[in-house]
Amino acid sequence: MTSVSPRIRDLGVALGFLPTGPFNAITDVPGVSVGHVSLRGEGVCTGVTSILHGPREELWLRACFGGSHVLNGYGQVVGRDWLSESGLVNGPILLTSYFGVGALLQGLNAICPDTAAHGYTHHLVAETWDGWLNDPASGALRPEHAPEVIEAATAGPVAEGCVGGGSGMCTYDFKAGIGTASRRVSLLGQDYTLGVLVQSNFGDRRNLVVDGLPLGREIGADAVPVPERKKVLPNEDGSIIIVVATDAPLLPQQCTALSRRATLGLARTGAMANNGSGDFALAFSTGNRVDVLAEQPWQDLQALPQRQLDPLFHATVEATEEAILNALCAATITTGYKNRTVYNLPHDLVRDAVERRGQALPR
Amino acid sequence: MTSVSPRIRDLGVALGFLPTGPFNAITDVPGVSVGHVSLRGEGVCTGVTSILHGPREELWLRACFGGSHVLNGYGQVVGRDWLSESGLVNGPILLTSYFGVGALLQGLNAICPDTAAHGYTHHLVAETWDGWLNDPASGALRPEHAPEVIEAATAGPVAEGCVGGGSGMCTYDFKAGIGTASRRVSLLGQDYTLGVLVQSNFGDRRNLVVDGLPLGREIGADAVPVPERKKVLPNEDGSIIIVVATDAPLLPQQCTALSRRATLGLARTGAMANNGSGDFALAFSTGNRVDVLAEQPWQDLQALPQRQLDPLFHATVEATEEAILNALCAATITTGYKNRTVYNLPHDLVRDAVERRGQALPR
Amino acid sequence: MTSVSPRIRDLGVALGFLPTGPFNAITDVPGVSVGHVSLRGEGVCTGVTSILHGPREELWLRACFGGSHVLNGYGQVVGRDWLSESGLVNGPILLTSYFGVGALLQGLNAICPDTAAHGYTHHLVAETWDGWLNDPASGALRPEHAPEVIEAATAGPVAEGCVGGGSGMCTYDFKAGIGTASRRVSLLGQDYTLGVLVQSNFGDRRNLVVDGLPLGREIGADAVPVPERKKVLPNEDGSIIIVVATDAPLLPQQCTALSRRATLGLARTGAMANNGSGDFALAFSTGNRVDVLAEQPWQDLQALPQRQLDPLFHATVEATEEAILNALCAATITTGYKNRTVYNLPHDLVRDAVERRGQALPR
Amino acid sequence: MTSVSPRIRDLGVALGFLPTGPFNAITDVPGVSVGHVSLRGEGVCTGVTSILHGPREELWLRACFGGSHVLNGYGQVVGRDWLSESGLVNGPILLTSYFGVGALLQGLNAICPDTAAHGYTHHLVAETWDGWLNDPASGALRPEHAPEVIEAATAGPVAEGCVGGGSGMCTYDFKAGIGTASRRVSLLGQDYTLGVLVQSNFGDRRNLVVDGLPLGREIGADAVPVPERKKVLPNEDGSIIIVVATDAPLLPQQCTALSRRATLGLARTGAMANNGSGDFALAFSTGNRVDVLAEQPWQDLQALPQRQLDPLFHATVEATEEAILNALCAATITTGYKNRTVYNLPHDLVRDAVERRGQALPR
Repeated sequence: MTSVSPRIRDLGVALGFLPTGPFNAITDVPGVSVGHVSLRGEGVCTGVTSILHGPREELWLRACFGGSHVLNGYGQVVGRDWLSESGLVNGPILLTSYFGVGALLQGLNAICPDTAAHGYTHHLVAETWDGWLNDPASGALRPEHAPEVIEAATAGPVAEGCVGGGSGMCTYDFKAGIGTASRRVSLLGQDYTLGVLVQSNFGDRRNLVVDGLPLGREIGADAVPVPERKKVLPNEDGSIIIVVATDAPLLPQQCTALSRRATLGLARTGAMANNGSGDFALAFSTGNRVDVLAEQPWQDLQALPQRQLDPLFHATVEATEEAILNALCAATITTGYKNRTVYNLPHDLVRDAVERRGQALPR
Repeated sequence: MTSVSPRIRDLGVALGFLPTGPFNAITDVPGVSVGHVSLRGEGVCTGVTSILHGPREELWLRACFGGSHVLNGYGQVVGRDWLSESGLVNGPILLTSYFGVGALLQGLNAICPDTAAHGYTHHLVAETWDGWLNDPASGALRPEHAPEVIEAATAGPVAEGCVGGGSGMCTYDFKAGIGTASRRVSLLGQDYTLGVLVQSNFGDRRNLVVDGLPLGREIGADAVPVPERKKVLPNEDGSIIIVVATDAPLLPQQCTALSRRATLGLARTGAMANNGSGDFALAFSTGNRVDVLAEQPWQDLQALPQRQLDPLFHATVEATEEAILNALCAATITTGYKNRTVYNLPHDLVRDAVERRGQALPR
Repeated sequence: MTSVSPRIRDLGVALGFLPTGPFNAITDVPGVSVGHVSLRGEGVCTGVTSILHGPREELWLRACFGGSHVLNGYGQVVGRDWLSESGLVNGPILLTSYFGVGALLQGLNAICPDTAAHGYTHHLVAETWDGWLNDPASGALRPEHAPEVIEAATAGPVAEGCVGGGSGMCTYDFKAGIGTASRRVSLLGQDYTLGVLVQSNFGDRRNLVVDGLPLGREIGADAVPVPERKKVLPNEDGSIIIVVATDAPLLPQQCTALSRRATLGLARTGAMANNGSGDFALAFSTGNRVDVLAEQPWQDLQALPQRQLDPLFHATVEATEEAILNALCAATITTGYKNRTVYNLPHDLVRDAVERRGQALPR
Repeated sequence: MTSVSPRIRDLGVALGFLPTGPFNAITDVPGVSVGHVSLRGEGVCTGVTSILHGPREELWLRACFGGSHVLNGYGQVVGRDWLSESGLVNGPILLTSYFGVGALLQGLNAICPDTAAHGYTHHLVAETWDGWLNDPASGALRPEHAPEVIEAATAGPVAEGCVGGGSGMCTYDFKAGIGTASRRVSLLGQDYTLGVLVQSNFGDRRNLVVDGLPLGREIGADAVPVPERKKVLPNEDGSIIIVVATDAPLLPQQCTALSRRATLGLARTGAMANNGSGDFALAFSTGNRVDVLAEQPWQDLQALPQRQLDPLFHATVEATEEAILNALCAATITTGYKNRTVYNLPHDLVRDAVERRGQALPR
């Protein structure tokens, strides 16, 4: 059932220079898996998505290195301070609704293994706001969804659009949600994969750019209705969480550098990082596995030389741009809380503009 | 019932040069109030403390400026990214157990007023770990404790020691919890108050310094037993949350500067900021009140000139040191989860050392 | 003589939605002036550009608020730590060659007024690397160029391209240098101006995007030669300094927020923020003037409410994109050190692509 | 001639729990060397100190990892942004006068090897202000002092007090300058050394604390004159640069963590981090050597597990405190610019207070 949604490449848009991985998804990074729990019902349009950096049985005790960047801080990634301090990602990364953070933290506390040995950890839970399509008071997300979404994680194709944490999310005034993409890079004879997954929920229609085409200003509210949300909540713009993963061995500050490049890919789609938007990027590298509880005098590690990072930066920019467009492309018209409807990006309009441009400016 | 606990000044220790406010508490800052909810029972030794920056009816919609600093990030202050971005503190600041964060976030979401108008906010919830004396699985903290602890907030004397969020906390291997102190400063003819409140839960016995006296290394485990916690959880050291408040009008980055000085007061007590400790400082200034929803082209503000900040820095250092020692001084011997007992700092040993020093080195 | 260079708008490219100021330059911000000292000679192709935030006679003692952001730190903006600490910009902002920083610091120390009264200040000197066209050992920039470039600052049109600090700079493998642009925004009835000036010196040819058009990959090395620099210095990519100014009254952290948006405008031109690039943005607001030496108990200030910032963010993105393209557009073919030649972006190719796109996708 | 100055231990003060290295100096870290150039003459009382992380012949091209922290940003460490970005320290670390930064940058540019191959680097030059004893206009520091001070670096004992960059510096209103100290730690059977060197130039007399003794408030201006500087420059407090080195293999963010602990040691001496003080800490680890120009797909590295860092934190706190006191202890009465005299800390007063305390509170 997964991955049958159309993707931006299906509409004739091929972004960037680098080749994609086999699924064009964050799961192209070996060992990375993704799970969704999607909740729909009366007034309920929400969910949670998990990203696991490695095997479920080692998830908490074998950490990998990571970093993060905040383009605009109207949002929260719980656990980010420990990530900044230690450069370690252990446990799952959860992407969910603003309204689900508390319940999922409780759920993670309950299942975090081996509490007696290492006390506790600081869970990474990121959120964007789905209160337009999802009843803020529904309490739909519960602690038990934390183990459920971890259990749901699989390798292979990733469902996109209105699934998991993306269930109730909107982007550029279209329905959106989860999107993913990947790139392959070759570095001095070594092949690496970099993947991105976004929970996308930001932006004003008119700013949308698809592969350089200003489609946002061409698709007016008469062509496709704009949600009334911005009339009611004029300063609430949503948010985006961008997660970057790679198997290239990187140190924490190199992961942080990747996370800053994610905002360049975001910018290519037209993002302004409005005040009411929480724009966060996380990046992690599976190239080193650190035993969190090891009683060792040192760990042997590997890392790319700083001056070899550029191809990974390029991959991050390209994959982030594509993941956002995939989130838009895969989403479908959705009616939720209070009977509000959010429309999807019309595929034919994208395909048509791309074709006309291609005729005028053949490559 | 509040404030009858002994304080470090009662033992002959007078820290620093600056005068205290009337209660020697964060509530000496006009408009600031503090509330506690303390939960005790079978295996339960936890709670939550609220700090309100202003009147309850304006708590969410009239913000003041604030900033923060992380000395060591093994912990979390949920909502800190929005504080860093905007420099705004609205809603209460809650200090609680690691295990209560999720429930209290849910509780705050439920009561945050006027959701239709401004969507949502990013609540400030800070935690330290009380899993030695408090059953991690008890689920004692529930969403309804969020409105309860806000309602409990009062001006005037502040209960210290084993109360509120400090119920299950330990410091330098003694029982501790909540402590507070304040200082008054005069700046070019203007009088201002600065107060500090800590939830203190960190440190190894041997490092404790009281007003320059190395009492920690003098009070051995045979004199006062040391919790076995560090044998069981050798790398878990607890944490400290330091909240600084002042009525001096400060801009956000000036509040951030105050929060960095809080760590100097922390250091004076012997703190090492161990890896397993989450050492966070928040600071806010009530000198400006910002209407969060105002549709105004600009706001009129006041701020101290940058070069006038030094007395507030000194006040922060002094009050932080004293608040931590007050947390130690007010706490009492506590038996909790699994029948574990944590002993308090013996007042007579402090008093005796201070006296002997005073005779040798009269001032 | 200034401002007769062609600009990107002259080629049919009109970026964004917001109107420009009268000069479409940073000097549209009232009180802001710009000066250039350009040095050419045997092996010498360098210079320095000054941006003054206010009247020359008040330059050091009347500060305005500012902030900064580092997208990639392969470079230096001397004085940035004091800017981060205090949020104050006093004295000029100088943009220059990597090789000129030392001499200009000496020059600024020599002229910083009233040393007896306030001791010293921390000068803002930003650099990018012009060692391809400019002899690193020439020592062309000398201390006396600091007062000279301050004296040279004027309001009105700003010379762009191969002038001042931009004399020896290249962008996307074309000759570039200084560029500027501005936008006007209306906020609840108040009109404000925001201007950007860049010293642009980064990027690989193939990544250049002009208003969504991938011109970089269309203009091959056979059409316009690429400098051999990247063969000789494969990991040195140059840098960009972006300076944002506005008369909207902003607090320091709001200026910092503007500086982060500058990187979104940078991204729109195709930037990857390569490892060898120092990508820095500074932003300042002239809306408050702070007397650095004032012995006052407080200062009266104004600031935009946080939720009113979005139009300024949009203006920053648009003006940054346009300033970079203006730097490319105004620059002319340049032969410098070791007889190396760097070619300019061919205007006719831009104009032609823009026209063809316009016919295919009329707005 | 080196190291014959008295040190704080010679006065009966033994700080902390950890053993020192053989020289109780930063040079106890294998491979680390220190050099001084001291300039004295008519109105001239200044100099520069170099810290080399490894052999002179590999200084630029074999980097080690490092990080930094700013407690208060009234100062500058040129090159710090590249350190933050890359986590790399290559080239020397220079500590000097505010007035020497420009000349030394020019000197470093001139000698930075192999410019053709790697373009350039971003030199680390830190400063504090010696304009009370040293004529700001003297121009005594010149570019050629950069190679000279690198050449002067040696292993073994380190001259302290009024030497090198510390020549004109004052601390707590006494003469001070350069100080150093070291600690040895054992981590799971591995022995490591951590050393600190400070250029100390901050503080008000009354705040000085020596090993918990409030000597600053006991040594009044009538006992030892206080420089008139604070009457003339009431808001200029000087600064401190703290450099931490260790041979324990650390990653960049772990070095940053060390640099934050340095401020805890600073606090123990009574520091308030006044607004007019630039309080910077740098830390580097020689445990990994990175070939800056290597064309390798990856580097093999080692790092301490995050949870093993505590002994190094403790060593940093202890050695920083001791290095500052050594700077005070080694300095001698100095008359400089405009015939101003700054007195040293009287050793007998320290010794006497320590003795009396020891009798009252024997350990």
